[in-house]
Amino acid sequence: MYRKCIAEFIGTFWLVLGGCGSAVLAAAFPGVGIGLAGVSLAFGLTVLTGAYALGPISGGHFNPAVTVGLWAGGRFPARDIVPYVVVQVLGAIAAAGVLYLIASGKPGFDLAGGFASNGYGEHSPGNYSLTSAVVTELVMTFMFVLIILGATHTRAPVGFAGLAIGLALTLVHLVSIPVTNTSVNPARSTGPALFVGGWALAQLWLFWIAPLAGGLLAGWLYRGLLDRDVTEPDVTGRPTRG
Amino acid sequence: MYRKCIAEFIGTFWLVLGGCGSAVLAAAFPGVGIGLAGVSLAFGLTVLTGAYALGPISGGHFNPAVTVGLWAGGRFPARDIVPYVVVQVLGAIAAAGVLYLIASGKPGFDLAGGFASNGYGEHSPGNYSLTSAVVTELVMTFMFVLIILGATHTRAPVGFAGLAIGLALTLVHLVSIPVTNTSVNPARSTGPALFVGGWALAQLWLFWIAPLAGGLLAGWLYRGLLDRDVTEPDVTGRPTRG
Amino acid sequence: MYRKCIAEFIGTFWLVLGGCGSAVLAAAFPGVGIGLAGVSLAFGLTVLTGAYALGPISGGHFNPAVTVGLWAGGRFPARDIVPYVVVQVLGAIAAAGVLYLIASGKPGFDLAGGFASNGYGEHSPGNYSLTSAVVTELVMTFMFVLIILGATHTRAPVGFAGLAIGLALTLVHLVSIPVTNTSVNPARSTGPALFVGGWALAQLWLFWIAPLAGGLLAGWLYRGLLDRDVTEPDVTGRPTRG
Amino acid sequence: MYRKCIAEFIGTFWLVLGGCGSAVLAAAFPGVGIGLAGVSLAFGLTVLTGAYALGPISGGHFNPAVTVGLWAGGRFPARDIVPYVVVQVLGAIAAAGVLYLIASGKPGFDLAGGFASNGYGEHSPGNYSLTSAVVTELVMTFMFVLIILGATHTRAPVGFAGLAIGLALTLVHLVSIPVTNTSVNPARSTGPALFVGGWALAQLWLFWIAPLAGGLLAGWLYRGLLDRDVTEPDVTGRPTRG
Repeated sequence: MYRKCIAEFIGTFWLVLGGCGSAVLAAAFPGVGIGLAGVSLAFGLTVLTGAYALGPISGGHFNPAVTVGLWAGGRFPARDIVPYVVVQVLGAIAAAGVLYLIASGKPGFDLAGGFASNGYGEHSPGNYSLTSAVVTELVMTFMFVLIILGATHTRAPVGFAGLAIGLALTLVHLVSIPVTNTSVNPARSTGPALFVGGWALAQLWLFWIAPLAGGLLAGWLYRGLLDRDVTEPDVTGRPTRG
Repeated sequence: MYRKCIAEFIGTFWLVLGGCGSAVLAAAFPGVGIGLAGVSLAFGLTVLTGAYALGPISGGHFNPAVTVGLWAGGRFPARDIVPYVVVQVLGAIAAAGVLYLIASGKPGFDLAGGFASNGYGEHSPGNYSLTSAVVTELVMTFMFVLIILGATHTRAPVGFAGLAIGLALTLVHLVSIPVTNTSVNPARSTGPALFVGGWALAQLWLFWIAPLAGGLLAGWLYRGLLDRDVTEPDVTGRPTRG
Repeated sequence: MYRKCIAEFIGTFWLVLGGCGSAVLAAAFPGVGIGLAGVSLAFGLTVLTGAYALGPISGGHFNPAVTVGLWAGGRFPARDIVPYVVVQVLGAIAAAGVLYLIASGKPGFDLAGGFASNGYGEHSPGNYSLTSAVVTELVMTFMFVLIILGATHTRAPVGFAGLAIGLALTLVHLVSIPVTNTSVNPARSTGPALFVGGWALAQLWLFWIAPLAGGLLAGWLYRGLLDRDVTEPDVTGRPTRG
Repeated sequence: MYRKCIAEFIGTFWLVLGGCGSAVLAAAFPGVGIGLAGVSLAFGLTVLTGAYALGPISGGHFNPAVTVGLWAGGRFPARDIVPYVVVQVLGAIAAAGVLYLIASGKPGFDLAGGFASNGYGEHSPGNYSLTSAVVTELVMTFMFVLIILGATHTRAPVGFAGLAIGLALTLVHLVSIPVTNTSVNPARSTGPALFVGGWALAQLWLFWIAPLAGGLLAGWLYRGLLDRDVTEPDVTGRPTRG
């Protein structure tokens, strides 16, 4: 179990350092910045690389909403939820600390830039409302966890789960950064919020409740409606697609 | 069968929410928008992630032109076409509804921006003619379905179909968004058009007819000319490429 | 053999329609254009998708320099070179024709924009010299064919060749579009040049000679220096990397 | 052994030519340049393509920090470190030479543009401090080598290591180009620095020491804390993910 906790700590550290780091350091670099598409790719690649490197040890959750969703889907034991979530949050905080150390070495750096925190209303990148934020975080986490449950099912092709799951997180960001700066991960939101304080801490509740609810719904829906091997015969006698 | 319909509903919902969502919410975000390349990636990743997560259940069509093309290619039973197409269209409409709920939470949002609808002539992003639109949708859907038929063939490497098919949709968008905003999928066109109404509904016929025709041609051509195992001996005794 | 020729025709058609099409239609779209990175991705994805869909039929060359390089590497029979190259060139010409049909449906379209032709000197996108163009095309094709030979070797992991080869073509374009608009493929250069005429035809020789030379060198070098199974024992008894 | 050295020479040549080439030739191309995201993708694809093409021969290090880190992790014999590092540096220098030959064919080319060298302080792209540079190179190389060790472990899915490792290098660049222009590879830093001279040579020490230290730490930490097969039983009896 201690190896699993180390792996989850490092994986969530990498998710926040890589994802939030790309946003803080590189997104708006003058003339050649990576933009929201680059940040989306970075977040996805943290999970893709972490899944192949650390997934065989801990399962590669790196996200309390994933851990809770996998439990709801019958894939993860209840007694391991608390230790997983604790080390995920600690990893996220450590990453925010290292990112602060790096970012503050640039003349003129200021936490008032947001430090990649999540927010709604006047703290949404595109000034989206609270309702938009709740719907976005709920639906995006629901789909993210549903994809995890499907891609890691025994009937899915072996080895491709890390690819599909990482790129699913990229997709989630390609859509929703303008709305909430994209969380779908309470640990990822907590790290930067502790450094920014104020509004970021005041709005942090949403980025725990909505992702956890989305993950739970995905786990229950998948387990209840989709989680059985396809046994219905196919007229053609061969699979309709890979 | 009900599990297959749920999977097709969710998959098409994800295709429209992720693809059209990235276009409506993030493509032109000031300074750091994801642009047409980001939207192209998003559409492709909806299918890539859906294929690995839901493909083992329903085959992962998410598109009436794919369903019809697979039938023409001898890979899908005729009796399942109607239920598949119905839930695909319903999933697309549901996604357009959720996207409207999110997008309308931004001050100044307006459906007159197009809401990611497809169009030609003055409603083509680059003002391309009706002829350009018909040729584009026909050829792009033809190639998309041909790639699906080839990548899911029993002689193709196992597991890579979802990757190749998802990235094929990205490629189709990289080329053709300027012409028609890219459909190659009647369900994807129908969702947003119902919200925009007017010109979008008036031009919707093209985005049913051309993709379905392209899919049918691909199915017939692949089945008639390409669909047999290579039995000709190779002089070198080893495969010319993977 | 006729199935192989159809597959090479369609694959090269797709390479030119997808790659050159993204350049002509979408690269410089106002405000949200896909840029050189998007074009690079498009070219790579034509080969990636073609490799998984058509590779099992024809080997997925889609490029005379690849066909010749595989022959030099001992992987392809000499008697099939001519039919492969002929259908590759025909596929490229057909693609340029379809692209012209689509592109000319936009008000103000003009072949003087270059139509994605390759060139050097004043026809290099960045005004690079003839020497720069020769070195670039030679070295880039050399590396591209070397990667093909390595990734399709029997000791390489099964199934990943299409991914590695497609993304190698993306990489080649990320580096070299500014120099020659990137060919590394005589067929790809010939299609657009026939429509543009004039300077494009006058400079076409370079995009046959340099890529073919690069492919030949790669084939000979790989076969002579690298093409044997590693038989030297490893001290650790396990592979140093995947 | 000579085949391994040829493979490492070519692979590091490709890393520097492809990665630094994309930065020098294409990053800031007017209007349609590939930007830092395109350069990040290019660096990653050099390793991804090299890993599939040459990895089966040499292990695909292409980087002294990787070679040293794999030794620290118990995956590489000490006696091969020196020959590997020597040919890696030679390959990097050869690539910088070829890139100079190509780049200098453009009117107005000037090495004062930096030629993709790494630096800190006033030579950091974003003027980041020496401390930021040390922390960045140390942490990024640590994570890069940790991912290599995990993704090539016998318990990781077969064949995906090249994908995960290449995209890990893309991620590292998406985050850290603004800080140091991203090295995590002493050979990559040495090639361009020899052509630029002056400040680039004077700051080169950091891009040997920090990456090597990061690689060593990763090797030791992985071997000491993570490098054993998971033997603890799982309550659910099935893997929690992929």
